[in-house]
Amino acid sequence: MRERRLPDAWLSGKMVSYHMGWTDASGNEVRVRTGKLVRPSLCLWACQAMGGEIEWALPAAAAIESFHNFTLIHDDIQDEDGRRHHRATVWSLWGVPQAINAGDALQTLAFSAMAEHARHPRRMLRAISALAQAGLVVIEGQCLDLELEGTQCGGLRDYVRMAAAKTGALLGASLETGVLLAGADAATAARFRRAGRLLGTAFQIRDDWLGAYGDPALTGKSAQADARRRKMTFPAIAATRLKSQQVRRKVSDVTRSAALRYAEMAVFALSRTAIEKSALDEFEEVAYYVATRSQ
Amino acid sequence: MRERRLPDAWLSGKMVSYHMGWTDASGNEVRVRTGKLVRPSLCLWACQAMGGEIEWALPAAAAIESFHNFTLIHDDIQDEDGRRHHRATVWSLWGVPQAINAGDALQTLAFSAMAEHARHPRRMLRAISALAQAGLVVIEGQCLDLELEGTQCGGLRDYVRMAAAKTGALLGASLETGVLLAGADAATAARFRRAGRLLGTAFQIRDDWLGAYGDPALTGKSAQADARRRKMTFPAIAATRLKSQQVRRKVSDVTRSAALRYAEMAVFALSRTAIEKSALDEFEEVAYYVATRSQ
Repeated sequence: MRERRLPDAWLSGKMVSYHMGWTDASGNEVRVRTGKLVRPSLCLWACQAMGGEIEWALPAAAAIESFHNFTLIHDDIQDEDGRRHHRATVWSLWGVPQAINAGDALQTLAFSAMAEHARHPRRMLRAISALAQAGLVVIEGQCLDLELEGTQCGGLRDYVRMAAAKTGALLGASLETGVLLAGADAATAARFRRAGRLLGTAFQIRDDWLGAYGDPALTGKSAQADARRRKMTFPAIAATRLKSQQVRRKVSDVTRSAALRYAEMAVFALSRTAIEKSALDEFEEVAYYVATRSQ
Repeated sequence: MRERRLPDAWLSGKMVSYHMGWTDASGNEVRVRTGKLVRPSLCLWACQAMGGEIEWALPAAAAIESFHNFTLIHDDIQDEDGRRHHRATVWSLWGVPQAINAGDALQTLAFSAMAEHARHPRRMLRAISALAQAGLVVIEGQCLDLELEGTQCGGLRDYVRMAAAKTGALLGASLETGVLLAGADAATAARFRRAGRLLGTAFQIRDDWLGAYGDPALTGKSAQADARRRKMTFPAIAATRLKSQQVRRKVSDVTRSAALRYAEMAVFALSRTAIEKSALDEFEEVAYYVATRSQ
């Protein structure tokens, strides 16, 4: 396919490469550790676990990381967050209108990466479709998140629906695209998608825990930002269900164990697929990390 | 492929269907004429002109209209425009954060439409790639547009670069995806892309003319909005090049004939392809409409 890269001189490229941690705000090369790369790692792992070559899934892994970062740039605008990964956010440097463009470009780049590097055209189309379907769910999860913000309504059920959409869908697509590119059938793809959705729910609950009890020096986010915006977080919901006695300690414990429970459900979902015992052990390790990480 | 529609009850779906003119702001069905459907029409026409079945290009036509509308929703936020197509814009009804989501969903829907309805997988992947490449150019055009706004710098060269990017690239992709889905080779696809880019430049110049001299009752936009934001428009550039005597009349004439000139170049670009004389006549008619339309 045609080779037409986004030149660095382009403003959209400059903002994107700043956000990704490849350059500073002036465009000078730097190497900043930004994301944890959980999603692309899961995608490559899933492709291999189903007997595929890791290279087949590279375009999808890159696409999912790109799509994830598009949502982060727009999320920072929507939440008016000034810091991410210990750095100023894109909108706080270039303004909201240009930051909208930067996020838009990262979504486009995601689909571009997959369409341009397909080893198996039919499989790739199924993978693109899986990412797009998940993407629509992620965006609707963002809508829900904003709608519920500050309302103090919505119970555990709404929370899980939002977390499974906002965060779970893209982790679901990470595993799903990986196995689709390895040639998996629809039923297997659905099981991996479900496991990813559960793992993503665990991820979000742990994220909420870090937002309330984590160390800002490690998370790179300002402490109590969720509370200030009166976000519907897992700890906020747990707090309404507990008596005031020792609430803080209990809410923290309840949140931590909820994350672990969802991670266990994710592992259980994958235990019913045809993957090797050693692959399942690897997944269990990642799931435990997701539910207990401190950044 | 899987059938998972975006339910109407979803907020992102509600905003999208309002913007598209299918529902009012409460979600009640209406039929409002919004866009002129120039892009999807060109896509279907190009597929047929190269000997393809019109059905092969339907997913791309839908995708391009969807992509175009994503850019409109974000453009309205960026330009703080309160009205489009005689109706309140999405951000003015639901606020900026939710309107960002609505635009994001329309971009995702574009790629979803193409990936899920492919008659010829390899051709469709090339078409998805063409749309994504054009999309990156469109987004960079938006960046340029915002960057040049109010600076009063930039000459005709910068203007043409911006218009060819912001508007030309997507009209280019309309023709390019159409012929790719008909099985065209890379050289033919490039000629159609070029013709579309020139036609898009004509489209943008005419848009600027309508912004300065058009009838707001027909265009559905507030008059002089471009001038208020000190946008770099074709009339604004022409005005700096003409003496003050009778400037208004002359600027209007120069702008109108520039749009026609780009439309003629578009027709000339297609005259060097293998399409039938009758098809070329149809394209000439569309090009003339684009350069002279009053809405």
